[in-house]
Amino acid sequence: MKDFSYCLPTRFVFGHGAERQAGAELAAMGAKRVLIHYGGGSAARSGLIGRIEADLRAHGMEVFTLGGAQPNPRDDKVYEGIEMVRREGIDFLLAVGGGSAIDSTKAIAHGSRYEGDFWDFFCGKAKPERTMPFGVVLTMSAAGSESSNSCVIMQERTKIKRGLSTELNRPKISFMNPELAMTVPTYQIASGATDILAHVMERYFTCEGEVDLTDRLCEAVMQAVIRAARIAVRDPHDYDAQAQLMWAGTIAHNETVGVGRVGDFGAHQLEHELSALYGVAHGAGLAVVFPAWLRFQMRRPEHVMRIAQFANRVYGLPVNFEHPEETALRGIETHESFLREIGMPVTMRELGARAEDIPALAAKAKRNPDNATIGRAWPITVAEAEEVYRIADR
Amino acid sequence: MKDFSYCLPTRFVFGHGAERQAGAELAAMGAKRVLIHYGGGSAARSGLIGRIEADLRAHGMEVFTLGGAQPNPRDDKVYEGIEMVRREGIDFLLAVGGGSAIDSTKAIAHGSRYEGDFWDFFCGKAKPERTMPFGVVLTMSAAGSESSNSCVIMQERTKIKRGLSTELNRPKISFMNPELAMTVPTYQIASGATDILAHVMERYFTCEGEVDLTDRLCEAVMQAVIRAARIAVRDPHDYDAQAQLMWAGTIAHNETVGVGRVGDFGAHQLEHELSALYGVAHGAGLAVVFPAWLRFQMRRPEHVMRIAQFANRVYGLPVNFEHPEETALRGIETHESFLREIGMPVTMRELGARAEDIPALAAKAKRNPDNATIGRAWPITVAEAEEVYRIADR
Repeated sequence: MKDFSYCLPTRFVFGHGAERQAGAELAAMGAKRVLIHYGGGSAARSGLIGRIEADLRAHGMEVFTLGGAQPNPRDDKVYEGIEMVRREGIDFLLAVGGGSAIDSTKAIAHGSRYEGDFWDFFCGKAKPERTMPFGVVLTMSAAGSESSNSCVIMQERTKIKRGLSTELNRPKISFMNPELAMTVPTYQIASGATDILAHVMERYFTCEGEVDLTDRLCEAVMQAVIRAARIAVRDPHDYDAQAQLMWAGTIAHNETVGVGRVGDFGAHQLEHELSALYGVAHGAGLAVVFPAWLRFQMRRPEHVMRIAQFANRVYGLPVNFEHPEETALRGIETHESFLREIGMPVTMRELGARAEDIPALAAKAKRNPDNATIGRAWPITVAEAEEVYRIADR
Repeated sequence: MKDFSYCLPTRFVFGHGAERQAGAELAAMGAKRVLIHYGGGSAARSGLIGRIEADLRAHGMEVFTLGGAQPNPRDDKVYEGIEMVRREGIDFLLAVGGGSAIDSTKAIAHGSRYEGDFWDFFCGKAKPERTMPFGVVLTMSAAGSESSNSCVIMQERTKIKRGLSTELNRPKISFMNPELAMTVPTYQIASGATDILAHVMERYFTCEGEVDLTDRLCEAVMQAVIRAARIAVRDPHDYDAQAQLMWAGTIAHNETVGVGRVGDFGAHQLEHELSALYGVAHGAGLAVVFPAWLRFQMRRPEHVMRIAQFANRVYGLPVNFEHPEETALRGIETHESFLREIGMPVTMRELGARAEDIPALAAKAKRNPDNATIGRAWPITVAEAEEVYRIADR
């Protein structure tokens, strides 16, 4: 178990009608001029944005809105937000939506308190030292951005998607009402569940030994997500399934199951290039990349037992003690079956990706200045990344 | 799953030599006059207190010390601490030890910022509204007080032991070095592991349905603790086992595995009376009470399946689908075997308790003004509490 330092200051208000507490809570935090940043039109059409606006106004706040945060959130919207914050003297940001609206809000918050170009933080030119207070009303279970230290933004011009990890990325408060996730399209629910699973898997497939406690916590989350995703995809109005997914999404990516271990995140890097190039849902890209990445890692004998552990403990598959690699492989196949069952693609073809793009995808994944290799725990080279994409190209 | 509001602001500095960062971290928090509060002489004799003192002084702080925090921490030490804080103008408290030193420190912190008698908070006469900043250097894995919202103090004169739950009970920072737990006597390691398991079990045996995620998180922690306790009792110098126990102790009692459910804590109340009357280790008392409490709960048919789930998922026992009560009972027996294996008592007799005290013990457990019944999720009456003690009186 590795040494760690950890603090999670986000307050969670979780459950039925949680967002109705936003006005009172933001007022208590001293918010006066609030910018609500949200994504597609559904949040506005459903009346959610209007209700939150009215609630904040009833609590004495001036309210401004900025819609249009997109999946794979773009830098142009961030610039627009920063400009608004400065022009209107905004003192609190409230993201309403999923990972895109939240990540875009985080970037606006940091950029608004920085003299230079906010992209400096994402291309590694500078580190954010201050930010402004922001909160979240979560409407879908996926990215975990409602309490994670992560933020991912795409530079529209170059289609480069880059992440920023900093403790400043943790929201002050997150309002989490599982009812709001009930109107998310089934495909997005499935993508979200796949993203949640991937956040756990990135931490689970590790070279760190003797992490029994966090291994079991990871397995617990994966088992619960698999069960809840099956239910929520069939019946999005099942409150308890949506609640399990929503809280699982949070703890999957805020280090509750990751302390004391080194995560990999190579599969995430391979996926970011897919969604940047083809505009696919992040979760759908992960559904394609992760099983292929695992099949590739099977070639390294030292990784087989951990994949077999996944097969046995998460999917309940019997262990073949004579040939554990058979157990491991069955685990990957079973995981693919689950992904298909909830409606996810599992091949590059289904995703609309092209074989001829593979060398460029792999090279771009590596070109990220953060990466000495692609992935930290079970690292791969560019050539090996091409191989992973090829395994997925069936 | 129940609605909840949750925030865990404690910063954790975890790993090898973690306490050596105390000087720098406390200085960064602005501490100037620090009172170190600790328990028995071992922390002083080992040189730990001296090293921490020197480190704080090297970072420019004035340091005061108050030893003598006892297991089942007493009100007289709290009064002494409050007096010292006021006399010396202390601005930061640092507990060094386990649950006793930490709980005593929490009570000093709240009492120092209150005009009246601090015991008002524990007898239900008042609620603390402010406190002073305090931190923890943890030396044993057990109570989870290093980040929980709990605090338990005993009034020496009446031998009444009372708990206080408030968000003010969360430390600012906890330094957690598993190496410090290596010199704890084996019996205390086992008591600590039993306490950790009990904290999870209090949340696990619940009437809340559809809490699959937190069920599995609870099971994960219990499995990891059982494994690590077996190792640590045989070899206290196994770092990884101590590290698993230490982090498990933290998350077992800070709601990481408890959000969205109602805990019971009836067994804890029955135990508090045992340790108040006989001065036994809290964990040892729980080792006696909890299996008896489970045997009693077996009489209620609606609880059998959950105890069977515990047997199957935590101890890996096969399910008898025709007679699940047999599986449940085997789970309790297996748990008792584990407790014996790590050196815990499992009967009142081994604890030195007397059958003739049982009516008084049960009545005192009920007399707590917090309790409408004894326990919240699976509540019992005074007569039933007597029955639980009698089951343990073999």
